[in-house]
Amino acid sequence: MKPIQVGLLGIGTVGGGTFSVLRRNREEISRRAGREIVVTVGAARNLDRARKVVGPEVSLVSDPFELVRSTDIDIVVELIGGTGVAKDLVLAAIEAGKHVVTANKALLANHGNEIFRAAQRKGVMVAFEAAVGGGVPIIKALREGLTANRIEWIGGIINGTTNFILSEMRDKGAGFDEVLQEAQRLGYAEADPTFDIEGIDAAHKLTIMAALAFGIPMQFDKVYTEGISKLTLEDIRYAEEFGYRIKLLGITKRTSGGIELRVHPTLIPRRRLIANVEGAMNAIVVKGDAVGPTLYYGAGAGAEPTASAVVADLVDVTRMHTADPQHRVPHLAFRADRLSDTPILPMADVETCYYFRMRVLDRPGVLADITRILADLSISIEAMLQREPPQGEEQVDITMLTHRTREENVNRAIERIEALPVLAAKIMRIRIESLDGK
Amino acid sequence: MKPIQVGLLGIGTVGGGTFSVLRRNREEISRRAGREIVVTVGAARNLDRARKVVGPEVSLVSDPFELVRSTDIDIVVELIGGTGVAKDLVLAAIEAGKHVVTANKALLANHGNEIFRAAQRKGVMVAFEAAVGGGVPIIKALREGLTANRIEWIGGIINGTTNFILSEMRDKGAGFDEVLQEAQRLGYAEADPTFDIEGIDAAHKLTIMAALAFGIPMQFDKVYTEGISKLTLEDIRYAEEFGYRIKLLGITKRTSGGIELRVHPTLIPRRRLIANVEGAMNAIVVKGDAVGPTLYYGAGAGAEPTASAVVADLVDVTRMHTADPQHRVPHLAFRADRLSDTPILPMADVETCYYFRMRVLDRPGVLADITRILADLSISIEAMLQREPPQGEEQVDITMLTHRTREENVNRAIERIEALPVLAAKIMRIRIESLDGK
Repeated sequence: MKPIQVGLLGIGTVGGGTFSVLRRNREEISRRAGREIVVTVGAARNLDRARKVVGPEVSLVSDPFELVRSTDIDIVVELIGGTGVAKDLVLAAIEAGKHVVTANKALLANHGNEIFRAAQRKGVMVAFEAAVGGGVPIIKALREGLTANRIEWIGGIINGTTNFILSEMRDKGAGFDEVLQEAQRLGYAEADPTFDIEGIDAAHKLTIMAALAFGIPMQFDKVYTEGISKLTLEDIRYAEEFGYRIKLLGITKRTSGGIELRVHPTLIPRRRLIANVEGAMNAIVVKGDAVGPTLYYGAGAGAEPTASAVVADLVDVTRMHTADPQHRVPHLAFRADRLSDTPILPMADVETCYYFRMRVLDRPGVLADITRILADLSISIEAMLQREPPQGEEQVDITMLTHRTREENVNRAIERIEALPVLAAKIMRIRIESLDGK
Repeated sequence: MKPIQVGLLGIGTVGGGTFSVLRRNREEISRRAGREIVVTVGAARNLDRARKVVGPEVSLVSDPFELVRSTDIDIVVELIGGTGVAKDLVLAAIEAGKHVVTANKALLANHGNEIFRAAQRKGVMVAFEAAVGGGVPIIKALREGLTANRIEWIGGIINGTTNFILSEMRDKGAGFDEVLQEAQRLGYAEADPTFDIEGIDAAHKLTIMAALAFGIPMQFDKVYTEGISKLTLEDIRYAEEFGYRIKLLGITKRTSGGIELRVHPTLIPRRRLIANVEGAMNAIVVKGDAVGPTLYYGAGAGAEPTASAVVADLVDVTRMHTADPQHRVPHLAFRADRLSDTPILPMADVETCYYFRMRVLDRPGVLADITRILADLSISIEAMLQREPPQGEEQVDITMLTHRTREENVNRAIERIEALPVLAAKIMRIRIESLDGK
């Protein structure tokens, strides 16, 4: 049979990785897919550099719209990134009747609903395993592996940069800024690290996972997003003393009031498997009502891990592309005409447990004032830690863990406590998740 | 559209779980599959008990062959187990043109080649996600999620009973027999626990994973299989002192000389994620050349976790059953006409690192004799531990870790050392795997 012909939009890190995985494992891949899968056209800004990557056999064009409309192409792989021209290209590819494989989480989180509608209309597939968890087949697990289940919640380390930074802070006892610089030097963080460290990248990925898990549209604008840039070494150490690790988690949860969608630093019990995921690795825990908790772990970024997911999509599309669209796995795991309109729960209504660190002046009555405010708001304390201040120091840290309570009450408590004259700094509040399969 | 009609062979633990998951999540499942999936006929030995499980709406028959040939059934779910009548039933179902979903690892490991040939001939699917790792979608990951990769190795905790026993021994400092009895009391181990504790169940599952990973036929008879019944608490403690955990692993690895297929207790560095998988849970590490190491974790047994995998297969078959057989995922991940005849490496040729515990009489020159024998066989020692014998004791344990060496040399060394007059007991030898992604 004639090989499946692939057009590659973008021949950078992941594009180069995709090309070389397809070439290196050509034999193995065709034994699986039943057909060869070959990159025939590539589009890149710098054609000379692209030529060095793909060799003489691939046609190269500088106009990506030319590639997208080419009649020699069965599948378009979009690896340009961003939500600008990438969106136009993906829509143009769909319009031209091409299947699309993309690693672009920002695009799907922001414009996925429009893109999937267009694809549905044209009867083409848009595959996006590489958009979440790099090479970890988490999209497939959610869309196909766990179809028996009513998914209850997902909690995931879905950004390698921030996990690397938190691991290094803990391991080496270094501060956030220092470790961020190291991460940039090692290539784990971008020159402008905002998307990663402020949780935006994780929020994109969480948006996609929530849509697949609950059969809801993409709702990126409703994700509560808080990054790691304010975390201190002290918090990491206090968390350890309480038996916890701090991870940046993407969390989505079905509750009676709506679906939680939130990204923030989180205390996780140290004995949980996911608490022990270190460095730039990703791991996602999915809790289904039948299967219980399951975990998926692997490299969340990098040329070849991401290429692994892109090529898996190419094989899936190859296997399915002549089959009747009726029988394909729905883009969002659920039939497009049967999505749910379950609302997203406002952050103020989220209930969970909390860690607080309060830096106070070491005066009599401080603790009484604080605990009175907490009690008035029905926030009950599960554990507390206060040490003698070091010789000559006036300030002391009070850290505590609370039982389950509403975010809104916590916000009010923080406001009132911060108004006390003995507070020496802003209160640090970190949410706790037990991820215990219940 | 008319619901997909399922016939259930066996209405025990997993059969009951499958029935109740299908019923409880009917709405969610049909939103995903695009059709309802309904159990219409069941076959059971005890019809009264079965009736209590499935209620009045399901037809019950006592002759399973009647079910298999029923024209009212689209898919047969085989949950009888074993390799006797289950084999005849699966072949009869295929012959009758039915798709088959089975959780029966023993059947597939022993007769999979014949069953898949028959299914290929009749153009029907045989799905078996539940055969390995319970509810963990590991079959899907291997067949579809990692298709880009040349799989290099798999190492998995694929038997919950033995992992429970090893976890309890370490946690509670109890001996094997005591913990086995506890496991039996809790329902984690069968009255006759041989299949689990001697590694046979794990060998079945490993056979299936190796076939999918490497595109080779099922070769259960070539698996080297060693259980956990000889492990002692001392070994678990010495392993900890060296920084390792002992787990029963199923290991399959591609080497230049052939494919390794082995199940045995294994020392794993304690810092690996999989070393921290406790209790009856399963976890499988798959190393692909592009993606690197990935890990899949969840409940490996139990009514609903297993049902989760059975129902996922039902959804897959529902989505694909009217599609052209050409486009289905091949049973063994690779096209049936393109399987590989790579040989299985004999155990004697396997190379790995080893842990030894030697109980010797505390005499001068013992260590010199032992290390001489090891050196003669080119076995080099990486670490060693010997303590003063307790007051009044004549015997002392020497434990050591070796660098990589061939199993054959280790066998010879053990034979020669055991012939020394100072040896007070048989040598304990446990293989080591670093599972470090290299």
